[in-house]
Amino acid sequence: MKIAILGFGTVGSGVYDIITNQTSPLLANIKVAKILIRKGKEKKLPIMVDDITDIVNDPEIALVVESMGGLHPAYEYIKLALTHGKHVVTANKAVLARNIAEFEALAKENGVFLSFEASTAGGIPWIASVEKARRIDAVSRFYGILNGTTNYILDSMDEREEDFADALAKAQELGYAEADPSADIDGVDVKNKVVISCAIAFNSVVDIDSFPCFGIRNIDKRDIAYFKRENRIVKLIGEASRFGDKYEAFVMPNAFTRDAMEATVRRNLNIVTLCGSTIGELKFYGQGAGKFPTANAVIQDILDIFSEKTEYTIDVKRKIDYDDTQSKNNYVLRTDRALTNPLFRAVIPFEGLYYHHADGLTIREMRGLAEQAGEADKRFFIIKQADF
Amino acid sequence: MKIAILGFGTVGSGVYDIITNQTSPLLANIKVAKILIRKGKEKKLPIMVDDITDIVNDPEIALVVESMGGLHPAYEYIKLALTHGKHVVTANKAVLARNIAEFEALAKENGVFLSFEASTAGGIPWIASVEKARRIDAVSRFYGILNGTTNYILDSMDEREEDFADALAKAQELGYAEADPSADIDGVDVKNKVVISCAIAFNSVVDIDSFPCFGIRNIDKRDIAYFKRENRIVKLIGEASRFGDKYEAFVMPNAFTRDAMEATVRRNLNIVTLCGSTIGELKFYGQGAGKFPTANAVIQDILDIFSEKTEYTIDVKRKIDYDDTQSKNNYVLRTDRALTNPLFRAVIPFEGLYYHHADGLTIREMRGLAEQAGEADKRFFIIKQADF
Repeated sequence: MKIAILGFGTVGSGVYDIITNQTSPLLANIKVAKILIRKGKEKKLPIMVDDITDIVNDPEIALVVESMGGLHPAYEYIKLALTHGKHVVTANKAVLARNIAEFEALAKENGVFLSFEASTAGGIPWIASVEKARRIDAVSRFYGILNGTTNYILDSMDEREEDFADALAKAQELGYAEADPSADIDGVDVKNKVVISCAIAFNSVVDIDSFPCFGIRNIDKRDIAYFKRENRIVKLIGEASRFGDKYEAFVMPNAFTRDAMEATVRRNLNIVTLCGSTIGELKFYGQGAGKFPTANAVIQDILDIFSEKTEYTIDVKRKIDYDDTQSKNNYVLRTDRALTNPLFRAVIPFEGLYYHHADGLTIREMRGLAEQAGEADKRFFIIKQADF
Repeated sequence: MKIAILGFGTVGSGVYDIITNQTSPLLANIKVAKILIRKGKEKKLPIMVDDITDIVNDPEIALVVESMGGLHPAYEYIKLALTHGKHVVTANKAVLARNIAEFEALAKENGVFLSFEASTAGGIPWIASVEKARRIDAVSRFYGILNGTTNYILDSMDEREEDFADALAKAQELGYAEADPSADIDGVDVKNKVVISCAIAFNSVVDIDSFPCFGIRNIDKRDIAYFKRENRIVKLIGEASRFGDKYEAFVMPNAFTRDAMEATVRRNLNIVTLCGSTIGELKFYGQGAGKFPTANAVIQDILDIFSEKTEYTIDVKRKIDYDDTQSKNNYVLRTDRALTNPLFRAVIPFEGLYYHHADGLTIREMRGLAEQAGEADKRFFIIKQADF
C-alpha cells in the first residue's frame, strides 16, 4: 500500500523512519511513495515533491499522512486528499478541532476514512480506546493531562520552586516548548484535544468556542507553594462530561491531592481518563508528544485502515449543547487583593496573594466570580480542587 | 449472532446482563441462546441447559463464553467448543496459563478464535493493547499490579497499619478475597497472568513453572512500617522482560517510592505497563476484576470476533527460554534473625526483624540468598526496591 506524507518535520520524519526501519513485518506492506515539502526547500530524498497535486492525482497513493501542523494549508490539503478518494491520517489537532465535522462528512462522502489517533495524547492509544469503550458503554466523562509542555513547566515549578518564566525558558531550551508557546500555555492545545475527544466520546460535534479555557500563564510560584502547603499539586486539565443532550467542558488548572494518580505524572508525560457505564474508570498514561510515540500513533491508524478495522464513529449531524450549570465543584480564585462575596467560604492571604475558596459552584457561578475578580486583577486565576 | 455462556457466576451473569440490557446498539446483533449450569442446579432461565453437548452440537451457536473458572471441566469444554468450530472467549486465567499453546493450536486448526481479554487485568484493555503495540514495536517488558485481592490487602495494611490476617479477613468480608485465598495471596493468579501476557507480548509460549513466584502471605505489618519509613509502599508485581531469545519473569512484592504511579493504585484496582521500542512506556489503569468490568472485556472480545477484527497473535511453536541472569535489581531480604553474607550492603534491624539490603543482584543471586535464608527462617521474604 502506498502512502504520502505531507510535511517532513518531527512527526512526518518519524513516520518515515519507522516505516523504513521496518521494526515489524506488518510494516512491509506500507511504502512511502511521496513526501510533500515546502516549495524552495531542498529535496533531500528522491521521493520528495513540492506540489500537492503530484500526490492527490497519483492513483497509486491510497492514504495521505498530514503532518504539517497549522490551519493552512493543512485544511485545504486534507480536503483535497479526501475528495480525491485518499484516506487521511493526521496528527494536527488545531485543524481538526475546527473542522472535524466537515472532514468527517467529506470522508464518508468519498468512501474513505479520516483517522487522528496522534492528534490527542500523542502515543497514548486514547482515541481508539474511547471508540472501543463506546461500543458497549455510554462514556459519561473524560479528563486528563493532555499537554506535555504545560506539565513540564508545572512539574519544574513544583519540584524546583521555579518562577513560571524560568520554567518556560527551560522547557523551550529542551525543546518541550515552542518559541511562541501561547497555544500550549494558554490552554488552546488542550481545548483542541477536548473538542476532538468529545466528538469520539459523545458521538457529537461540540462548539470549540463555547466552553471556558484557562491556561497557566498567570500561575505564580507562590500559587504552587500555596497548594503544596495543602498537600496538592497543580496540573492543567482538559475535561468534559455529558448530561443527556448537554455537555460541560473546560480547560483549567486543577489542584490534585498528592496521592492522586495525576499528581505522579512528571515531566512532559500525559494521562487521560474515561468513565464508562460498565467499565468504570480507565486511565491511559504515556508520551503525549515526541517524534516516535506520535509517529507510532499515526502508523497504528494506517494499519487499522489498511486492515479494514477502521469504522466511522462520529455522527457529524449530531450536535450537543454546552451547559455550564450541570456539575458542582470546589474552586479557588487567586487575586492580588482580597475580594468579598458570600460565595467564598474562606479568603486566605499567602505571601501577598489572596486565595478565595468557594465550594460547590457550577462553572457558570465560578466564571461569574472570575469576571468580578477580573475587574480588580487582570492576573487572577481559578483553580479546581480536583477530587475526580 | 448466537452465543452460549458456560457458567452463570459473576462474569457469566455480567455478560448476560450487559447483552440483555443492550447498553449499546452494537449489542443488538448478539443473542445469548444457551447458558450451561451445573447438573442439579435450578434452571432459572428457559435458555439454561446442563449438558455441554446441547451447546457444542447446536449449529446456530457460533461462540462460547467460558466463565466457569477452574481447570476442569473448563479445559475439556474449551477444547470441545473449539473442535466443534465455535469461537471461545474466556476469562479463565488458570486454565489458559497452563494450556494456551494447545488451545491456540486447536483454534487455528478449526478456523476459529480463542480470545481472553478478560483473563488478565479484568476490564483494562491490556491484552488488546499489547497486541496492538506489537504491530509496530518489539515489546521488551511489562509489569504491573495484576491482582485486586492482594492490592486491597496491601493497601489496607498500609493505610490502617493492619496485620495481614485482619486485612485478609476484611477483604474476604467485602468479597474481594475468596474463602480459600491461596491463589491470590501466594501469587499464583498473577503468575497465570504473566504467562498469558508473555504469550502476547513476546509472541511465544513460556513455561509457567520456570520462574519464581512469591506472594504476600508472609508480609508483616512491620514490613509495611519499615518501607513506609523509607517513603515506600509495597505492591505485588508480576513482571517479565525479554532479552533476545531469553526471557526473565517473576511475581514478587515490590517497594515503590511514594511518587511512583503504582503507589497511587488503591483498593482492588490494577495497573499494567508495557515498554515498546518506539512507543516508550504506556500504562493502563482500571478495574482488574468485578462483574461488569470483566464482562465488558468478554464482550469486547465477542465484538471483535464478530466484526472480524480478531487475528492470531501467538506463535505457539515458538518457545523462549527462561534465564534468571539477565537483569540486576536492588532487593531487600527480611528474616527473623540477622544473616551475614558479603552480598548484603546493609542489614537493618527494625522492631525485631532484619532487613538485608543487596543491590545490583540478578534473580539467580537473589534466589540463592533466599534459599540460604530459608534454612534459618521459613518466613523470610524478598522484596524488590522498584525503580522501574
